[in-house]
Amino acid sequence: MALILTFLGKGGRAQTEVVIAAAQKLAGLGSRVLLAEQDSGPALDLLLETTVTASPMEVAPNLTAVKLSSTLLLEEGWEQVKELEAKYLRSPTLKNVYGQELGILPGMDSALALNALREYDQSGQYDVIIYNGNSPLSTVRMLGIPETLSWYLRRFGQILQESDVGKALSPFIQPITSAILNVSWSADDLSQEPTNRANDLLEQGKTALANPKRVAAYLVTTADELAIAESQNIWGCAQQVGLTVKGVLLNQGQVTDPIAEQFEPLSVTAIPPRTGQDWQPLREALPDFLADSRPPQPITIDVAARQVRVFLPGFEKKQVKLTQYGPEITIEAGDQRRNIDLPAPLRGKPVKGAKFQNHYLIISF
Amino acid sequence: MALILTFLGKGGRAQTEVVIAAAQKLAGLGSRVLLAEQDSGPALDLLLETTVTASPMEVAPNLTAVKLSSTLLLEEGWEQVKELEAKYLRSPTLKNVYGQELGILPGMDSALALNALREYDQSGQYDVIIYNGNSPLSTVRMLGIPETLSWYLRRFGQILQESDVGKALSPFIQPITSAILNVSWSADDLSQEPTNRANDLLEQGKTALANPKRVAAYLVTTADELAIAESQNIWGCAQQVGLTVKGVLLNQGQVTDPIAEQFEPLSVTAIPPRTGQDWQPLREALPDFLADSRPPQPITIDVAARQVRVFLPGFEKKQVKLTQYGPEITIEAGDQRRNIDLPAPLRGKPVKGAKFQNHYLIISF
Repeated sequence: MALILTFLGKGGRAQTEVVIAAAQKLAGLGSRVLLAEQDSGPALDLLLETTVTASPMEVAPNLTAVKLSSTLLLEEGWEQVKELEAKYLRSPTLKNVYGQELGILPGMDSALALNALREYDQSGQYDVIIYNGNSPLSTVRMLGIPETLSWYLRRFGQILQESDVGKALSPFIQPITSAILNVSWSADDLSQEPTNRANDLLEQGKTALANPKRVAAYLVTTADELAIAESQNIWGCAQQVGLTVKGVLLNQGQVTDPIAEQFEPLSVTAIPPRTGQDWQPLREALPDFLADSRPPQPITIDVAARQVRVFLPGFEKKQVKLTQYGPEITIEAGDQRRNIDLPAPLRGKPVKGAKFQNHYLIISF
Repeated sequence: MALILTFLGKGGRAQTEVVIAAAQKLAGLGSRVLLAEQDSGPALDLLLETTVTASPMEVAPNLTAVKLSSTLLLEEGWEQVKELEAKYLRSPTLKNVYGQELGILPGMDSALALNALREYDQSGQYDVIIYNGNSPLSTVRMLGIPETLSWYLRRFGQILQESDVGKALSPFIQPITSAILNVSWSADDLSQEPTNRANDLLEQGKTALANPKRVAAYLVTTADELAIAESQNIWGCAQQVGLTVKGVLLNQGQVTDPIAEQFEPLSVTAIPPRTGQDWQPLREALPDFLADSRPPQPITIDVAARQVRVFLPGFEKKQVKLTQYGPEITIEAGDQRRNIDLPAPLRGKPVKGAKFQNHYLIISF
């Protein structure tokens, strides 16, 4: 199992250089590194001075690079769906639709990339996978899939089982969904094997995300006050989907006291600009990504004290909303809702009180 | 009907400033402008020195600003879905799920934003809507929804009608899809009113996108060669979904001959940095967004000459793939597939030849 590392910043040359230097540094220290790039553009090729393809290729000792291609991944997923359909249905109808025809709709990139990362992780070929997304928000949304989707399955599964229409889950949407998620699920019996497989995958995803030794992020910013403010907001959005942020990389700026304070308790590391073709100073300036730091956990549940603490930096009190419409409590912040599936002793209990203090939302039952 | 204008660049302070200056300039010239920001972060607030909310609010004469909030838009969409369900189903089951619980999955942002833009457009309250997306790719994917989704409906509609399972479209996925698309569609009868409504909306979207007086984009870049290369790639990706790019804004750099050549036949405009609180030089440097320029059309079909010409700048020959697996021809480039629904005389005809010349893919039948 690999460490999945991602860098949340506005992109552009500086961030891509940080990503490459991080990959080089870890490879140099003996980790087998996969650098997975979401952007189909030429930036990575130009900086690595080679053509990175949709198949992983070694670009330096211990360092493999790949450009995640949504069209190709969807095509591969579709072939598996067609096989599944042929196996389960007497008159398969999808065999006449070709993976090579399928266009990419919003959201497919993220779902396909997450699945690809899972497969690379399980291949056992890499110790560290560095994922470079298109934008911080799309990375955060992607890593939020397991938790959000498992809520949808949990909530609508319940509703479905109680409903007239529970037996009629779509054979139309399902193949597409399956091609994207690379899992097969049907509502004919929500407790059957394919659904369990989907739930297992989502649970594995949630478990990985909750463990900063498995999935972790660093913020990448400049010293510009606007960039700092955006970065703090991204920090909050990351916490809101349960992604642990381990530190801040400050591009081409000095770590002043006000900047350090704004990211407390994270450490802020200054990264020099790259001069000429020399990557060495950049690599040396980077922090030890494998060090056993203890960043704040996004959520801690204390059953004995009947208390849930949610770490939400980067937000003001008025930007955080707590509601309890459905069977779970819902936290709204950073344009994302997080439903918290509480352990049995607290489940379904009414909220007695909540306060927002030192970046923590503290909920008492 | 408004002009929907978008700026494709890496984001950050420089781009947000360009977006604001463009909005100010157009408002100053008398257009009623809506500035719609996708990012929930604080950049826009800090630069406008006010708090932009999820409801449109006037920030200057003729200039209204809004932050598109996916959580709120999904909530509103969900209420409409519940009403629809209550109308059509004897025992509605969704009434127990609250819009305030629904989390955001990847892709929802784009679908919800596109629908919001459509509604703002139809409100008749704005002459120009400036959309500032999270990343160029997500904007391109969003504007590609009408074409890509209508292909899925077209292709799978066909398949469904021929299939055993055509009658069983999901009442599970459908409500969610409807909440996002804000349309109701069922497979019970693919020719019935809700489907027609969805098709109409998608056709309207395609028609708007094909008209540079309705939807147009500008590239935003710096003079850095990496940024230029990325920008050219984004140009290609935009053409690939049928989005017309009208020009290039060069931030804080000089328009040299090599740069101008790389974006031929677009005009490249140098934009000065903003100094202090003065937006005037920035506004003045911007091109006339309402001018009747004639940028290359993404696609032209000449039935008489039995020829289709697709403008695909930013790609090399080897990056463009033409296939004909299904009933339509498929162009693959920039990690997107575009299926071209040809007019009747050319439909279903085999491709006789194809060449890639001066950024045009020329297909003969």
